[in-house]
Amino acid sequence: MPRLVMKFGGTSVADLDRIRNAAEKVKREVDNGYDVAVVVSAMSGKTNELVGWVRSASKPEGHDGPGLYDAREYDAVVSSGENVTAGLMALTLQEMGVPARSWQGWQVPVKTTDAHGAARIEEIDTTNLDAKFNEGMHAVIAGFQGIAPDGRITTLGRGGSDTTAVAFAAALKAERCDIYTDVDGVYTTDPRITKKARKLNKIAYEEMLELASLGAKVLQTRSVEMAMRNKVRLQVLSSFEDTPGTLVCDEEEIVESNVVSGVAYSRDEAKVTLISVADRPGIAAAIFGPLAEAGINVDMIVQNISEDGRTDMTFSCPSDDLTRAQTVMEEAKTKGGINYRDLVVDQDVSKVSVVGIGMRSHAGVAATMFKALSAEGVNIKVISTSEIKVSVLVDRKYMELAVNALHDAFELEKTA
Amino acid sequence: MPRLVMKFGGTSVADLDRIRNAAEKVKREVDNGYDVAVVVSAMSGKTNELVGWVRSASKPEGHDGPGLYDAREYDAVVSSGENVTAGLMALTLQEMGVPARSWQGWQVPVKTTDAHGAARIEEIDTTNLDAKFNEGMHAVIAGFQGIAPDGRITTLGRGGSDTTAVAFAAALKAERCDIYTDVDGVYTTDPRITKKARKLNKIAYEEMLELASLGAKVLQTRSVEMAMRNKVRLQVLSSFEDTPGTLVCDEEEIVESNVVSGVAYSRDEAKVTLISVADRPGIAAAIFGPLAEAGINVDMIVQNISEDGRTDMTFSCPSDDLTRAQTVMEEAKTKGGINYRDLVVDQDVSKVSVVGIGMRSHAGVAATMFKALSAEGVNIKVISTSEIKVSVLVDRKYMELAVNALHDAFELEKTA
Repeated sequence: MPRLVMKFGGTSVADLDRIRNAAEKVKREVDNGYDVAVVVSAMSGKTNELVGWVRSASKPEGHDGPGLYDAREYDAVVSSGENVTAGLMALTLQEMGVPARSWQGWQVPVKTTDAHGAARIEEIDTTNLDAKFNEGMHAVIAGFQGIAPDGRITTLGRGGSDTTAVAFAAALKAERCDIYTDVDGVYTTDPRITKKARKLNKIAYEEMLELASLGAKVLQTRSVEMAMRNKVRLQVLSSFEDTPGTLVCDEEEIVESNVVSGVAYSRDEAKVTLISVADRPGIAAAIFGPLAEAGINVDMIVQNISEDGRTDMTFSCPSDDLTRAQTVMEEAKTKGGINYRDLVVDQDVSKVSVVGIGMRSHAGVAATMFKALSAEGVNIKVISTSEIKVSVLVDRKYMELAVNALHDAFELEKTA
Repeated sequence: MPRLVMKFGGTSVADLDRIRNAAEKVKREVDNGYDVAVVVSAMSGKTNELVGWVRSASKPEGHDGPGLYDAREYDAVVSSGENVTAGLMALTLQEMGVPARSWQGWQVPVKTTDAHGAARIEEIDTTNLDAKFNEGMHAVIAGFQGIAPDGRITTLGRGGSDTTAVAFAAALKAERCDIYTDVDGVYTTDPRITKKARKLNKIAYEEMLELASLGAKVLQTRSVEMAMRNKVRLQVLSSFEDTPGTLVCDEEEIVESNVVSGVAYSRDEAKVTLISVADRPGIAAAIFGPLAEAGINVDMIVQNISEDGRTDMTFSCPSDDLTRAQTVMEEAKTKGGINYRDLVVDQDVSKVSVVGIGMRSHAGVAATMFKALSAEGVNIKVISTSEIKVSVLVDRKYMELAVNALHDAFELEKTA
């Protein structure tokens, strides 16, 4: 029988009514003739509660210690949320006449690395599941978790249930991996910013990756990468509305598409410029090495032309990382590693990007983008491009305006 | 190093403050030089919440079905409560400088039968724990759970964490098994009924068994049986007060004791009499067979002398079982199995018992008991005796009076 993976996120299994609603969708696919593997997250709010307890247990109130917790215990505690949902989903399916059983990560087993709290799936042994499918028994899998080589429980990091779902879809050779969530698909841009935003029927893996990492929080980036690598067809659709979703698939499956598929944004960015840095070999490494070591997520990097052996170096990072970035740069100057005259910070910038595989074969996307922004009087502060995207930093106050202007300029409200 | 098992029940780990309080007691014993295995229950209220979800998932509101749940999924869901506490306790101990790690039942492993929801422990393999003890790592064990031969999670039934603790004490050859709870020991009777109730320093296994099954809800009966069989010295003590508890031990460890150790009671009993039953061989089996099949917990049984080939048969059961017992008896009559004239029910009775290993060598305990009750005008409705106890049924309104009178008559306020 063909197989299907169906994944339900926290809001889709937030209470028993919603679990029942999700179970009805599973039953429909079972009735359609699929062997179904259901992957569930913890009921929404549960993971945060458990994480809060772990933090407090490690660092009691009024205690000044570092409060660093043992990630192995964090995993043992936090994974319990998914176990509860998996059992409840199996019971609900049984009650509806669908034979099903729950599987915890170690029972499958889902073998992972031992990087507790952020483990990677290494192998899913489907022998046990296959045997149960052959008995007509559908599977409910606790997402987000696995087992380390030493037999301890691991978790995959926040949002890891998407990755669990895609990994199972690959291992089980499923026809599709359906990700049920609280949005009904992937849009040309955020519908809260422009009402013209249109739901895409299909989007290529590469585009989805750019959109995911650029701030469209529909799917976890790692799960899209894994889907692309294993050619898992991924569908994003709503748990609450009965409408078709968006299929994330190989670009060969997409017959017609716009040159640009979507406009993404990231609201809270910061721009840092080091003025008059000595332009010598190794200077970039001297700047970005310490930033990376400090765990700062540097995004765009621009180096201006050099004059008299000195240059200006600009980079962007999430606003939350700005203070740490400044500290690291000041320390680097004090210790003599980097000699710059001034450090200029712009805290109020946003990133806006256009994404589309069509760019590979169509010239002039960047030009159209710059012209559209210019026509609205939006000043571009930094530009960065890749094969299938063009990103710009703009003043935050212009962000919505820029997104709207680009959506119009590339006529994204129209189907290809 | 000598080993100690310390078990904390739900109220003793109800929140992070209480977990910390419990962890401090563990630290004290670690500082005393013990290798400690801590056994924890779920935070109080958690198990009930999970059980409620399981029931609702199996039988949605407005649904008339039987709502029978798959006990394997029940176990998978409900066991998560102990896993959370175990992780939090390990973290709290670590934070206090005590090296510790959590163990879920399947990780140890705690091998059980496959009687999901009421499994029995078959074997605890301590190889992994032993290795960690040798590294100076103390153990925190999720109570109440194990793993069935097919690899699915089992639970031991309510109160099963006591059994987990005793089983580990036996397997680890621990010097003692300390059960921390919300009472500070075993009393001569319920202190809510008489202020003269005195905490016992020591009590024999056999006595504790009678007290446990007679309604003194300090320890789960099965855990006491297991302790007796394995000669595990069991201490009951308070999580909240720093006072000595009660040691449950072999009677040889008890040098001096009163003839009677305690007075137990069970408030809500019912008495059923079948009037004028044909007194033929097999009649008792014909009556009590169907009751047992219906899961009714028949306690005392009395048969009067026979007249003209007919007799009266009386039995007691918990009040909650009365309606079902009546139904079973009426069906038995209709189907012709048992021919009785009348069925007389007394719903308002309580059972009061005196218990003591000293009875074996002291005659006259029953006589003293009956005299004391008679002096207070308490009518005895049914009598039942065993080697170390005498139980009577009395009208419920006299229950407190009877307990007080017996506590006085046997001078239980005085130490032996």
